[in-house]
Order: sequence, then structure tokens, then C-alpha cells
Amino acid sequence: MPISPGPFTGRTITGLARDLRGRRTTSAELVERALDAIAGLDPSLNAFVSVDADGARAAARRADGELAEGADRGPLHGVPVGVKDLIMVAGLPVTMGSRHFAGQVADADAECVTRLRRAGAVIVGKTTTHEFAYGPTGDRSANGSSRNPWDPARMSGGSSGGSAAAVAAGMVPLALGTDTGGSVRIPAALCGVAGFKPAYAAIPADGVFPLSETLDHVGVLAADGHDCLHAYRCLALADVPEDTGPARVAWLDPAGLFACDPRVVSATRAAAGPLEELRLPAGIAGELLETYTAIQSSETAAVHAGRLAEAPELFDPEVLERLRVATEMPGWRYVRAMGARSRLAEVVAGALFGRHDVLALPTVPLTAPLLDQRETELDGRPVAVRAALLALTSPWNVLGLPALTVPAGTVDGLPVGLQFVCRPGREHLLFEAAARRPSA
Amino acid sequence: MPISPGPFTGRTITGLARDLRGRRTTSAELVERALDAIAGLDPSLNAFVSVDADGARAAARRADGELAEGADRGPLHGVPVGVKDLIMVAGLPVTMGSRHFAGQVADADAECVTRLRRAGAVIVGKTTTHEFAYGPTGDRSANGSSRNPWDPARMSGGSSGGSAAAVAAGMVPLALGTDTGGSVRIPAALCGVAGFKPAYAAIPADGVFPLSETLDHVGVLAADGHDCLHAYRCLALADVPEDTGPARVAWLDPAGLFACDPRVVSATRAAAGPLEELRLPAGIAGELLETYTAIQSSETAAVHAGRLAEAPELFDPEVLERLRVATEMPGWRYVRAMGARSRLAEVVAGALFGRHDVLALPTVPLTAPLLDQRETELDGRPVAVRAALLALTSPWNVLGLPALTVPAGTVDGLPVGLQFVCRPGREHLLFEAAARRPSA
Repeated sequence: MPISPGPFTGRTITGLARDLRGRRTTSAELVERALDAIAGLDPSLNAFVSVDADGARAAARRADGELAEGADRGPLHGVPVGVKDLIMVAGLPVTMGSRHFAGQVADADAECVTRLRRAGAVIVGKTTTHEFAYGPTGDRSANGSSRNPWDPARMSGGSSGGSAAAVAAGMVPLALGTDTGGSVRIPAALCGVAGFKPAYAAIPADGVFPLSETLDHVGVLAADGHDCLHAYRCLALADVPEDTGPARVAWLDPAGLFACDPRVVSATRAAAGPLEELRLPAGIAGELLETYTAIQSSETAAVHAGRLAEAPELFDPEVLERLRVATEMPGWRYVRAMGARSRLAEVVAGALFGRHDVLALPTVPLTAPLLDQRETELDGRPVAVRAALLALTSPWNVLGLPALTVPAGTVDGLPVGLQFVCRPGREHLLFEAAARRPSA
Repeated sequence: MPISPGPFTGRTITGLARDLRGRRTTSAELVERALDAIAGLDPSLNAFVSVDADGARAAARRADGELAEGADRGPLHGVPVGVKDLIMVAGLPVTMGSRHFAGQVADADAECVTRLRRAGAVIVGKTTTHEFAYGPTGDRSANGSSRNPWDPARMSGGSSGGSAAAVAAGMVPLALGTDTGGSVRIPAALCGVAGFKPAYAAIPADGVFPLSETLDHVGVLAADGHDCLHAYRCLALADVPEDTGPARVAWLDPAGLFACDPRVVSATRAAAGPLEELRLPAGIAGELLETYTAIQSSETAAVHAGRLAEAPELFDPEVLERLRVATEMPGWRYVRAMGARSRLAEVVAGALFGRHDVLALPTVPLTAPLLDQRETELDGRPVAVRAALLALTSPWNVLGLPALTVPAGTVDGLPVGLQFVCRPGREHLLFEAAARRPSA
């Protein structure tokens, strides 16, 4: 349980929508609760970079007026939402967590924000991101580290750390994030909330600052998978098909990808229930990681080449060092990596999705490390924290597959996440699998 | 005039087709003349890597039989053709000009070869290529340098140097080549024949060994533009529209791209006739070159990474050194280059194709250098031969635009080429512009 439950702790969007339509609450009241919670909790969590109290109150009044008139925009109507500070919201500051964009104000909404507003959601503020979304730890930002509501001495995970902390602490019931190698799912898992990244390009990325364009995905964080689905339906370019399950779910042995804390494996496996076990074909894990690294490094260095040349001192030192390493990735490795993607997708489809619709595996192989921690031990081996955090999520960015993490209990009082992965077009089975797991 | 005119010197495919149908010759006779010419001339030119006398004779007999029965496959029916030794011809050796593929035999035809055969062409042999097509000089091949028929002490140009020398010396009336930065047009210009590279992917590249996949184009070399068009119609995936000219042609000042021999500019400009003059917008030439270099280096190094690691000693030393430099191209530059292509295409279309259908400019800014020459002087400045050879052709590979070179007289007894460039879909105007130039 987070140390500081907020007004939306234990609440779902479904429940809020029912209360709004039953006149048991108003959007204005929900927004005031969110603003109060941010004022009370955020000093210890740093989930928000900026709060738009006036804008949120005005939007809530409009939402309430529409609902009173019977103009119902659906489940997000009147619901307070946080937006990662890498995504443009017209008129609000957008820092990307970087001193390079200090004082910058967005002049237009990102397409995903336009869609949120069209669905009636009320934007209350911008959530902390790891600088330029370039890090899964969430503790390098011009705005300071976002902190884990379950233990503020620990990292939220990142890069969408503020979004995860805001939902986990009950400040808002929903937040937008971005996920290039796990940046929605990692902080969702470490903070004990649900997080969904759809298939590549399923939610438009226009107006979202790029990290690595062929790996970047816009995603959502909420209390559970069902709430993520509500939000996804509003954000997606195409309709999400209705459930036609039951999904055929297999357990994917995470040891084939990375060393794991055995307690995390036990907890997630218990949460998933008894399933047939699959393993990645030999060599594929290494190829997926090599492919991810070549693409991510080259594309990220391309985004920041100008800033690296002109004002390197404005980057956080760790981010700067990692960017400098990224500039050294040879082009031929990028070309080979881009060529490998379709081949890897075929191998994975053949080996893992032949008789199954959905794979289940832990989201992250460990619980939240301490802030600034960079080395740890997993299963008796020393490992780099960053590599460990990304190990079970980044393969699905390389392949562009939809992936959902849902809370799956705790280990030593810290949350763990259970991840479900499917092929594009089978998202309904993914959410179904998450909803009918034994612990759900 | 080449020092050793062969049986096809001064002959066009149109003329040969007429003679074949008028029973004034047979395909068998044409093939014998080609084989005799190769036997007589090739020791001094090294245009051919391998000759398939038996296969050519058998194919010629079939072609003659079909024509006698009235089964007419069109203008290439019965015509002897050379095929660059980078393109697979089933059952024939395919060396790529490299010791890495010594003794290799292709087990299937490239798609462009299948199309040639379907059109009734008779393949007489494989023509010398610069090793792995990686060089515009044509003088680095496991098979030895191809030589210029106008002066065998001079380079043919490359990488399709054997194809150009074979057509220029009249050994065959038509040859296939490939063009990544000018590898069809450069040797065609230096050897005084016509060469056409179509729009990107207009001729399928299946079964052609890659140099740089997003820049590689299959092309043709023949006596004149009209013969290139005959061959292109047989090779292209889509129909080529009929002429609807006259084409609106502009002169593109080559000084905006590179230093040029003023005599080459005068000769080509005179051949083009009086035209409105255009210049590239400022900065675009540099961007086109940077884009070309980043893409070509990264993609080529990706093709050869395995050979570089495992058997570097099998490469020609100059090719090896250039490949090693190519492996150092950073991935972020490749990413930016790929992103720049569509923007550059828009700028060029707006600046150059607004009021004109076709651009005319020299194909190469100088006449054929000596074999192995790597430095020269142009317009009073020292320049690298390789950079000079590629300077006026590679921009059209970056942009994927159709480009044709046709002979445009001589300077100091060496041929110069006049290049025409158009947008995809306007090829009919390109050939029309070449046909109605004053010197044609």
C-alpha cells in the first residue's frame, strides 16, 4: 500500500463515471480533490512538474455542464488526467525534464491530448519525466527525481515516473505516458499500477517529443487494465475489437531474457495462474537487445545532435554521458538492426504465438531500487539497474507488440507487475487475460 | 571514336531488330560476332569476367526459331546482352569482382535477367564490376581493371565499367548495370555510350548483390537513349507512358554541385542547346552529398560487416580501406540522412521542377582519368577523382529520380556525357528531351 493514499486510491474510472452520472460527484469536485492531493502529496513525490488549476477547473465546469445537459462523452468525461511532460498541452509549460526547454510553453495540443479532451477528460497538469525520456529510472530530470509512493526513498522507475507516481498515490485516476523501451510499464510496475503501451503507431505520436522514433509508443497508466482499456479506446486511431475470448495464455520464462529476482517470478507466476510455459528460441534474446540498443542509440543521438554540439552543459551529466555513448553507435549496426526487426518478428510469432494469443511474464525482474542506485544483484549476479529494468519490456518495443502491465502483489512490501503481450489486433484478448487472472 | 570498333559499333537495337526481322541477319550470327569481338578485343579492355558461348549459342538458336515461327518477343528478341557480374544469371559464375566470391555460381536468375530472357535477349557473358560495385573508377576488381575503349590507359569508370566498355567497343549492343551513386551513368559517360538508371525500384533488384539498398538501382547501357528505352520497357515493373512532349528542359548549372572542367561544360551545354538556366538552392548540394555519404557508408558497411570481420584480406586493399572508413559512419547521421531525403526531394521539386519537366547537366565533370589515378585538378582546384566522378550523379540516387546520360561529343578525344534528370512518371519526357537535343 502506498504510504500516502490519495483521493483516487482504490477508485476506478468505471466507478467514477458511475458516480458522475449518478450525481454523487461532479468533475469540479474530482478536480478539487486532485488539486488538494497534489498540494498535499506532491512535495514528497515530485510527480508533477506543473499544475494547471485554472484550466482544470474551467474544463471541469464545462464537463459538468455537458453531463447535466445529457451530452455524454463517455467514460473519461470529467475525469482528471495527468500528462507526461514530454507531450504538448497547448498553453502549458513543456520541459521534457530538461534545462534545454526551461520556460518553454507548448503552442498546440499533441494529437493524443486532443483526443483526451474530445473524450471529456480534464487535464490537471504535467507529470515528471526522466530527462528527454532517456532513462528507465525516473531520477534524472531538471525537475528532480520522481519518487515511489510505496517508499519515497526508492525510484518511481521511468521515464514516465511522474505519471506512475501520480496514479499510484491516488492524485489522479489516469495519466498519459510514453514507452520506448518500457517507459510506461516499468514505472507502472514499480509503483503498483497498470500501464498499457499499444501496438506501434496505434496511438498517434504527433506533438510528442521523440526519443527514438521507430520505438516510441504513447501509452496510458491507470489503476487497472480495464481503466487502461477505457483510455485506449479514446486514444486509438482504430476501433478496439470487442472481447471474443477466452484468450489462450502462455507463461514466457523470463530467465530467457534476464536474471530475475526469484520472488518476483514466484509472485507474478502465482498471479498469472497455471499456464503452459514457453521459452524464447536460443539466441533471440541477445538479438532483440542488440537490435533495441542499435536503434535506440542511433535515433536518440539523431534527435539530440544539435543540443550535444551547442549546449552539452544543459544536459544532466548522466544523460549527457549516455548520449555521448549513443553518438558512437555505428550506422551499419543501425541498418542491420532495422533489417533484423521483421525477421525477429517472424521468429517470435512462430515460436510464441503459434498456439497462444497472449504471453505472460514479469514486467520488471526486480522491485523498485533506491533513488540513484545503478548496480544491484539479481539471482546471485551483479547487474546494472538500467539493463535490468528494461530487460523484460524493450523486446516488445522492438517488435511493436501491445503490452500491458497490471499489479501482481508485493515482494518485501514493494509492488511487482505482471506483463501481458499480444500481437497487434488481439488487444481485446490481452485485456481479457489480465481481467480473468486468479488475483484480479 | 574508340580505338577498336566492334561489330555493334554504330548499330542500334532498332536497326538490329529490323535486320533480324528482314532476315538480313540471325541471332546466331549476332552472337558469333559478339563472341568473336570479345575474343579479339577483350584482352585489351577486360570488359568481360566470363563468357557463356554455349549458352548464348543455344539461346540464339531458340530466338531464331521463334522469330522464324512468327513468335516475336519485341525489340530485344535475339539481341546479345552483357550482364554486370553483380547480377545473378543461373548457372554462370558471379564474382561481384571480389575474391570473396571466387568460384561462386549463381543458382537462379535475377528478376531483371528473367525479364531480359522473357524479352528474347541472349546473354553472352558477365561484365567486369569494381569490387562489390564499391567504386566509380572501375579499376579495382578481382578480375582486374576494365579499360576505356577510347584509350586503354584510362579508366572505364565504374562500377559498371565492363558493361560500358563492352557497349562502347561494340562487343554487344546492350548491357545491364547497377547504379548506386552513378555506377551506370559514370562509365557510360566516360566510354561514350548511353546509360539509364530509372526511378528507385522501377526495375526490381531481386537477385542483384546489394551495395546500398536504398540507393541501388538496376540500369541499362546501350548506344543511345532510344535503345535504353527499349530495354527499360522490357525490364520495368510498370508500363512506361508514351511521349506527350515536348519536354520543358532547363539547364542545371553544375558549378552548384562541383568544380567542372570548363570544356566539359561547354561541350555538354552546346549539345543540350539553348536552355533556361537553373541553380540548386543554396546549401542543398552539401546536404545531398552528406545524405548520400551517410546512407551509402552505413548500408554498405552493413552488407560487408561479416566479411570485414572474418576475411578482410580477401578485399582489394583500397576497397578494404574504404569499407573500414564506412564502418565508422555514426548511426545518428544515417538516421538524419534518411529523414532528410523527403525534405530534400520537396526542396528540389519546388526549386527545379516547378516550370520544367527535365533538367540537363553534364554527367561527369571531367573526361576519363588514367587508370589508378586518384587526384586531379578541376577548374584550377585539386580534387579527388572519386568525388569528382560521383558529384553530378549521386544526388539523383539520393532522390530516387530517373536519369539518363547520352554521348555529347568529345574533349581532347575523350567522350563526355550529357545527363537528363526527371521526376518519376515523366520518363517519356526524359527520353524525348535526349532524342531531340541539337546534337542527337
